[in-house]
Amino acid sequence: MEAGRVLTERLLNEYIPSDSEDPRSLHTAMRYSVLAGGKRLRPILAQAAFEYCGGDMSRAEETVHRAMAAIEMVHTYSLIHDDLPCMDDDDLRRGMPTCHKKFGEATATLAGDALHVVAFELMARTGSIDVVLELARAVGTSGMLGGQMADIEAEGRAVTPGEIQEIHTRKTGALIRGSVRIGAILAGADPETLERLTAYGEKIGLAFQIIDDILDIEGDQTLLGKAVGSDSRHQKATYPAAKGLEASRREAAQLIDGALATFVEEEDNMLKWLARYIGQRER
Amino acid sequence: MEAGRVLTERLLNEYIPSDSEDPRSLHTAMRYSVLAGGKRLRPILAQAAFEYCGGDMSRAEETVHRAMAAIEMVHTYSLIHDDLPCMDDDDLRRGMPTCHKKFGEATATLAGDALHVVAFELMARTGSIDVVLELARAVGTSGMLGGQMADIEAEGRAVTPGEIQEIHTRKTGALIRGSVRIGAILAGADPETLERLTAYGEKIGLAFQIIDDILDIEGDQTLLGKAVGSDSRHQKATYPAAKGLEASRREAAQLIDGALATFVEEEDNMLKWLARYIGQRER
Repeated sequence: MEAGRVLTERLLNEYIPSDSEDPRSLHTAMRYSVLAGGKRLRPILAQAAFEYCGGDMSRAEETVHRAMAAIEMVHTYSLIHDDLPCMDDDDLRRGMPTCHKKFGEATATLAGDALHVVAFELMARTGSIDVVLELARAVGTSGMLGGQMADIEAEGRAVTPGEIQEIHTRKTGALIRGSVRIGAILAGADPETLERLTAYGEKIGLAFQIIDDILDIEGDQTLLGKAVGSDSRHQKATYPAAKGLEASRREAAQLIDGALATFVEEEDNMLKWLARYIGQRER
Repeated sequence: MEAGRVLTERLLNEYIPSDSEDPRSLHTAMRYSVLAGGKRLRPILAQAAFEYCGGDMSRAEETVHRAMAAIEMVHTYSLIHDDLPCMDDDDLRRGMPTCHKKFGEATATLAGDALHVVAFELMARTGSIDVVLELARAVGTSGMLGGQMADIEAEGRAVTPGEIQEIHTRKTGALIRGSVRIGAILAGADPETLERLTAYGEKIGLAFQIIDDILDIEGDQTLLGKAVGSDSRHQKATYPAAKGLEASRREAAQLIDGALATFVEEEDNMLKWLARYIGQRER
């Protein structure tokens, strides 16, 4: 995973315009947020799916590497906008001031928008219309943005277990599932493999957000790099609130087991490793 | 122009998800802002360029029509974000409350983001990677977003004529130029024609924003559907402020003449008509 993280950082550094290039303030804010660290889980999933499906490594630089940077940029843009005062109003992200705290709201709004554009540009530069459409589906109103909207609307009221599953599946699950699919599509995966990996992506995506909810209750603030307890302060709809902590833990574990079952009797691979990582993560 | 406007409204209506489809509040806000009227100048320019370059009209529905809707959506998203309190803080747009006034800031931010996604999705559905890249270039940091950033940073200080030209060329010119180019590219224009139309698009794009600045001083509030004098209240960098009203009028007229000269000795066409329209518009 460390190699994937280092590769992602190199790609991001390469693909975001330099902060000495005009408009400097915008590029500076973009670089600040994108290069602030993070697990780089989504691009690593895309890379792992690409490799699992036998993608052509000699062309990785023009295909999956661009997609990896695009995915992480779109993820970062969503965090920047999510942290804005009119949304979650968060001051801290990955142990550092959030983008609007550091550069002001106008610059943060535009930096998010700009990362969104660069992401689609990079995805198009893979030469595959299919992955551009896949990214749009993952982050559009039936995916991430729909989930963010439902998440805000659910604040302060009790939600049913069905609703919270739907919110999490869209808000976080869609981009994780999309990352896996994008890597597989760029590798030219056959339909059966793509379908199996889609189911894998759905399971780890939902598990990821359930565990996020759990860590917000009992995680270590220093490891997480953000304040714990923010969900309850914001009266967010969470799995533990809707189903209880124990049932949430059990469901996350079942999802990870289900994801691992995708590869039953196959030798160890990165996608299996990543599913286990998500199940055990502490940050 | 009326036919193009009606066509654009039909396309937009078709391509934005229905407000009875979840997430309803987001789709409602998207539809509200996109279907609030407007000149639909940018999509009409794309259509005119497509026709001028002999684009295949039997395939227009799958190509330039999708691009037209995409262009107008990306334009609307930029207006929604531009109107936010942290940006220009405008209450009125096309004679109606701005998106955040009507639906709140969080929904407006997400509705802008969602239109941004749908725009790229539709552009990809033309099947042409080139126009996806063209859109990204037009609205990215070297285009529209860079211009918006520079525009905000120039507030309250004197700017040079060179600076204001640069701001306007990016903020407004880049998407107008891009609209013309996208129509031409989808029609399969030869490089020489594309180059001529690019120069045409640059000229009318800059003229459009200069005239916008002039109308903000001496335009009719009812015709414009927004408050006049807002540039001066916001201490915006404008052409009249940097160069004077008379010189600004002269420069706009010269740009329109230059755009018309693109078609010297050619019979009348829609692109010529649109250049004249921009030169004479009162709203």
